[in-house]
Amino acid sequence: MRIIVDVMGGDNAPGELVKGAVQAAELYSANYILVGDRTAIEAVAAEQGYDLSRFEIVHTESVICMEDDPISVVRAKRDSSMGVGLQMLADDRGDAFVSTGNTGALFTGATLIVRKIKGIQRAAIASVLPFSTPVLLLDSGANLTVTPDQLVQFSMMGSIYMQNLFNLSSPRVGLLNNGIEACKGTALQLGAYEKLLADESVNFVGNIEASRIPHNACDVLVTDGFTGNIVLKYTEGMGKMMIGTLKGMFKANTLTKMSALLVKGQLGEIKHTFDASEYGGAPFLGISRPVIKAHGNSNAKAFRNAIRQAIDYVNTGVTYDIARAIGEIKQAENAEREEKSNG
Amino acid sequence: MRIIVDVMGGDNAPGELVKGAVQAAELYSANYILVGDRTAIEAVAAEQGYDLSRFEIVHTESVICMEDDPISVVRAKRDSSMGVGLQMLADDRGDAFVSTGNTGALFTGATLIVRKIKGIQRAAIASVLPFSTPVLLLDSGANLTVTPDQLVQFSMMGSIYMQNLFNLSSPRVGLLNNGIEACKGTALQLGAYEKLLADESVNFVGNIEASRIPHNACDVLVTDGFTGNIVLKYTEGMGKMMIGTLKGMFKANTLTKMSALLVKGQLGEIKHTFDASEYGGAPFLGISRPVIKAHGNSNAKAFRNAIRQAIDYVNTGVTYDIARAIGEIKQAENAEREEKSNG
Repeated sequence: MRIIVDVMGGDNAPGELVKGAVQAAELYSANYILVGDRTAIEAVAAEQGYDLSRFEIVHTESVICMEDDPISVVRAKRDSSMGVGLQMLADDRGDAFVSTGNTGALFTGATLIVRKIKGIQRAAIASVLPFSTPVLLLDSGANLTVTPDQLVQFSMMGSIYMQNLFNLSSPRVGLLNNGIEACKGTALQLGAYEKLLADESVNFVGNIEASRIPHNACDVLVTDGFTGNIVLKYTEGMGKMMIGTLKGMFKANTLTKMSALLVKGQLGEIKHTFDASEYGGAPFLGISRPVIKAHGNSNAKAFRNAIRQAIDYVNTGVTYDIARAIGEIKQAENAEREEKSNG
Repeated sequence: MRIIVDVMGGDNAPGELVKGAVQAAELYSANYILVGDRTAIEAVAAEQGYDLSRFEIVHTESVICMEDDPISVVRAKRDSSMGVGLQMLADDRGDAFVSTGNTGALFTGATLIVRKIKGIQRAAIASVLPFSTPVLLLDSGANLTVTPDQLVQFSMMGSIYMQNLFNLSSPRVGLLNNGIEACKGTALQLGAYEKLLADESVNFVGNIEASRIPHNACDVLVTDGFTGNIVLKYTEGMGKMMIGTLKGMFKANTLTKMSALLVKGQLGEIKHTFDASEYGGAPFLGISRPVIKAHGNSNAKAFRNAIRQAIDYVNTGVTYDIARAIGEIKQAENAEREEKSNG
């Protein structure tokens, strides 16, 4: 197992990312390849007293910024830590790639350099919403507009991911919609509903209203990337608001401050629920090799979890299962077509 | 001022709705017309010891159910409490109509019976999101797909509503989008961004990411009805989840139960924040006379607040201001067109 780690992206590079990688290496056996500025990486190691001899370091100088055009990863900044890391993954010089960098650039690079699994129309960004029963939301921002067939593929990929990474035998797939009735939604939802109902390979539980998302309604929630991005970011915003409200509540006066001490453990659990770092990063499903986007503000712990997730992603064979499923689906479609033309 | 009140729709009809109307009548001076089953209304009054002599009661037998096709309000169930109430509003036998019934039917009826303000392409359902700085979200479900021009009209209508009902001199209008940059979104957002930027009649503050919705980013948030419905319902679902989590936290053991007593006042405030009943109902902006949709599960207090909102809606002249604004816009457009054809 070889994990390629981009230590240059996001808000806390390279300090927290090098720390996260070193922590991961202590916990999870694998070969770690750090891609980034060698001097900066070694400075972090010197400061923290890390021995980097077990790491391979691939030196790069350029970095993709949040402001960069996504396409720059395959053009002007192909030599960036992200571009080099993705190329290494494509060339089989590693088994997975983890980065906190610019989401758009990472997705563009994954699609153009590493490439999609054959038969997958669109890769998707899948994000785990941090409720007591986690929900895998896809697409959460890569494809602003999609087709019903693409939503069906997202359902299949999301199911395989949840089966493998969350040990669910038959993940419940829901279609995000403005009502539960079959007649709800735009042409996209109407078309997808019909196709999902007919698809025996996924456990489709119907339309899901947004009010039910936090309440154990489904394990995989499919939607277009525009709506998915709204849901993902609103979850984050509401979580922050909730924690802020709680803090305000307990800071009100001496009695409430005492009260905070009594529920300290429970408060920690709530914070944990909304702490994206617990769940690591967002896998790009449909890419031919595992690419994980860690949150841009990842600290060492969040980044370490994203690396663990990449290892699980490789170990459980998600990519293989998706390729097999899409192959089987294509075969079934071809057989059906042949039958029709013969009959 | 004559308020037409549908006491037959929603989950708690007619009991809580009659109670809410009686409470409103005690607080806010107006003529109240109750539309619904006379026997059922009188039974509530007898049980509660209400004197109904100050109310006009218009007897109806049929009721629009949640399962009814929206169009039934103008067809098979035109004689329902909702259909009759809307017709009375259209015939100037009242100044505003409040109902907890089927949203789709109420919107369809408002559009087809009461009709839109001349020049308004699409009426919209506007909902107040209950944050410390309230946000008026529109459209929150009536028009699943819209055009950039319709979003511009929504901005104008939402601004006028917030000016009048929330006393804001220059409401900040935001466009819900998947990023803050001008280049973000689908063709709809790209088109709307450009038009909103050029429109001097609204205080456009740019694209708003969903993470910022609870954090005082804007006063009016415009989006298509599909996305708006997702945001509205997710707010509700997250609020419930949050309150459930807090309850669970305080019920954990004896110490946490003691703690709950210490923060009782603060807990009440949080519940209040997420209590939709505080804000009353959702106005249908763009309809030629005020129609307010109260929440389907309204209790007496929520319904009373929706009635107060209807009174404010009439008193502040929102409908008049919208009609005037759209008239002025049309005039300006005509003048520009004439100038071009002359020049």
